[in-house]
Amino acid sequence: MQGATAKAERARDAARVLLASTDEARRDALHAVADALLAAEPDLRAANARDLEAARADGLAAPLLGRLEFSPAKLRTVVDGLRQVADGDDPVGRTLRETDLDDGLRLWQVTAPLGVVACIFESRPDVCVQIPALTLRSANAVLLKGGREAAHTNQALVDTIRAALEGTRVPPDAVQLLEDRSEVTELLALDHLVDLVVPRGGNELVRYVQDHTRIPVLGHAAGICHVYVDAAADLEKAEAIVRDAKLDSPTACNAVETVLVHAAHLDWLPGLLERLRAAGVTVHADDADWDTEYGAPELNVRLVASLDEALAHVARHGSGHTDAIVTEDRDAMRRFVAGVDAAGVFVNASTRFADGYRYGLGAEVGISTGKVHARGPVGLDGLLTTRWVLVGDGHTVAPYHKAGFRHVHHAPDPDALRRTLHSWETPHARP
Amino acid sequence: MQGATAKAERARDAARVLLASTDEARRDALHAVADALLAAEPDLRAANARDLEAARADGLAAPLLGRLEFSPAKLRTVVDGLRQVADGDDPVGRTLRETDLDDGLRLWQVTAPLGVVACIFESRPDVCVQIPALTLRSANAVLLKGGREAAHTNQALVDTIRAALEGTRVPPDAVQLLEDRSEVTELLALDHLVDLVVPRGGNELVRYVQDHTRIPVLGHAAGICHVYVDAAADLEKAEAIVRDAKLDSPTACNAVETVLVHAAHLDWLPGLLERLRAAGVTVHADDADWDTEYGAPELNVRLVASLDEALAHVARHGSGHTDAIVTEDRDAMRRFVAGVDAAGVFVNASTRFADGYRYGLGAEVGISTGKVHARGPVGLDGLLTTRWVLVGDGHTVAPYHKAGFRHVHHAPDPDALRRTLHSWETPHARP
Repeated sequence: MQGATAKAERARDAARVLLASTDEARRDALHAVADALLAAEPDLRAANARDLEAARADGLAAPLLGRLEFSPAKLRTVVDGLRQVADGDDPVGRTLRETDLDDGLRLWQVTAPLGVVACIFESRPDVCVQIPALTLRSANAVLLKGGREAAHTNQALVDTIRAALEGTRVPPDAVQLLEDRSEVTELLALDHLVDLVVPRGGNELVRYVQDHTRIPVLGHAAGICHVYVDAAADLEKAEAIVRDAKLDSPTACNAVETVLVHAAHLDWLPGLLERLRAAGVTVHADDADWDTEYGAPELNVRLVASLDEALAHVARHGSGHTDAIVTEDRDAMRRFVAGVDAAGVFVNASTRFADGYRYGLGAEVGISTGKVHARGPVGLDGLLTTRWVLVGDGHTVAPYHKAGFRHVHHAPDPDALRRTLHSWETPHARP
Repeated sequence: MQGATAKAERARDAARVLLASTDEARRDALHAVADALLAAEPDLRAANARDLEAARADGLAAPLLGRLEFSPAKLRTVVDGLRQVADGDDPVGRTLRETDLDDGLRLWQVTAPLGVVACIFESRPDVCVQIPALTLRSANAVLLKGGREAAHTNQALVDTIRAALEGTRVPPDAVQLLEDRSEVTELLALDHLVDLVVPRGGNELVRYVQDHTRIPVLGHAAGICHVYVDAAADLEKAEAIVRDAKLDSPTACNAVETVLVHAAHLDWLPGLLERLRAAGVTVHADDADWDTEYGAPELNVRLVASLDEALAHVARHGSGHTDAIVTEDRDAMRRFVAGVDAAGVFVNASTRFADGYRYGLGAEVGISTGKVHARGPVGLDGLLTTRWVLVGDGHTVAPYHKAGFRHVHHAPDPDALRRTLHSWETPHARP
């Protein structure tokens, strides 16, 4: 077996090649991977059957078996997603800022890959295709570690991807699989080789990763979301939103845990609770529970005397994931939006909308409750950093100590530096 | 004495007030601070005189005394800078992305303050004004810890700032001073209260902070910058750039440490080295030194056989700060820009340009060699995160499981959400 360090070193070499790769090279590689995955369907099914058989023998629950199954329909879905990512605009080398520092001295800030990304995920093998699609598109190398239940499926997927890359300008070591838990432990110490870790799975996994590494972590450890039913709420909307926010997917991180109800609705509350209970929801109202994430059809209800009391509760007990107000009062909307420090601040909408696909980000890397680098649902942007490119003609700083700069900022054009680099490819066409 | 934890808790309360504060409130507060600092000139001079006296008694070197001195001219300069920051556009609440998820369901991604920022800096008391200017403008609270040499000056500055804030809508606890080293140790453990630490000072300080906290750190621990003199270099430009990059400020992090010279210039090299030595530069050429940051008029010189060998050297020994190529060959420029993974990638320009003021960022928070959140010289943007604001009319996700979304992305307009929030302030003017 090869250790995580050797794999990470080869990933870093692959990242160097990717850094200098063209849009076309990465796009072609992704389509080659898509073709190879479709061609490998029988092998992938056989590998998945072995995982499913072992899981049934272990008595895995039906919902988990469903997540583990990698059917031909799922394969087609992930391959479609992969081709969409391939055909989207190149996220790398996009100009964010363009400034002339002086005549003939131009500065661009452009998007750039992070380098080596690690993704640790639980049972869904789909992630083994989705994440490489995103990392390759953004010119990053990736180290994957999936759940033990899906070991054969994941291995077959990564083998297929690597074999497909052999025939392209992207090195196969841009996608590698870690094989056991000891490799994860080893990986988490490699902060000189790995630029970002994305744990995708339950809170326990995310907290473990956060507590055991100095590598930046993109993930969400807790989702204590609130719905505040304001004095001026439309109670029909409020009830629909509370039901959706809890029952659409009670285990999701964007499900509501605590409903704060303005005291003006004291008479409405018993009916709401009765209907929630009839729908299978257990209701709590204990001060000790305000920091509990149930991940189940359970929720807290608390009466508050004012919007300010609701804001104070959210500031104290929220996890900064997503909090919503239900109200018809525009000033209450404004104060809630101004006052809540969370990745998602919603007005008259279910907290369940907090999701990269629903936000229209195209592809989701993960959801971050951290504040630096990325916050909330994260698309391809979460896999990017920037570089500053400065082009002069022998410029030194000494003359500017007296004269100063006369900065000319240009309106951002995503293709500004790309055009310049392209012009450099054809020097003979220039005068 | 109050501990860092109590101060950080009060800073978090102040951050909540700042989060909901208006542009005008923060702008007015900054001008009140500027007025108060000018009015306090005699007190500030007296405090600074005490620090200077103690420093002279301790035998502090002249350049350090110069940095420690807070003259009336310096006061006017920092107050001018503060007023410029105050009068700039509001960095908070700027719309970065605007998407309709459906009729009447609109999503904005907007800039938002981080919350509580800590800044640990060395002897220059100017930082005690510059950093609060940036944090208040960006609606963050700040905890400051300055060097012991400047203790009286820093205390007088922070006292003046806090007293000025008393009469404004910004709470004085938005700016607080930590008093001794034990408070720094305490602070670094407060990752639940502090959102970002900015160490401004030597490598030792930055490394200490990075090694002792789980709070995200914005800083640069090493600056091993390269100048590669390509086969197609104009040697006059090359020599001017090397001299500037080393001698303009040998202790700066953006000074060059290693000059890579293409073997085509073997004949030129002895003359260059002679002239560098005559200018007081010590030249090294030992394999063991490639990872050394001199912070002094010393540098390494290495001959390389090709651009690829130069790229490999930079990939192995660079610290990802700033690397430059000198060449007239456009294809070499293109390959260098494509292939170097650093915050700054320069063509025919001195590495000394890597600086927030020179880049035209308006104000510099620090320089980051990390890749996540911010990279290279960092302006006000480094003190910001984002929030996602979603406004519906009772929308739930359940209906979209079948119907899907039809996302409509709008061209980014920085004021999009601000206008909406403003319209909510005047409900009676609406039908």
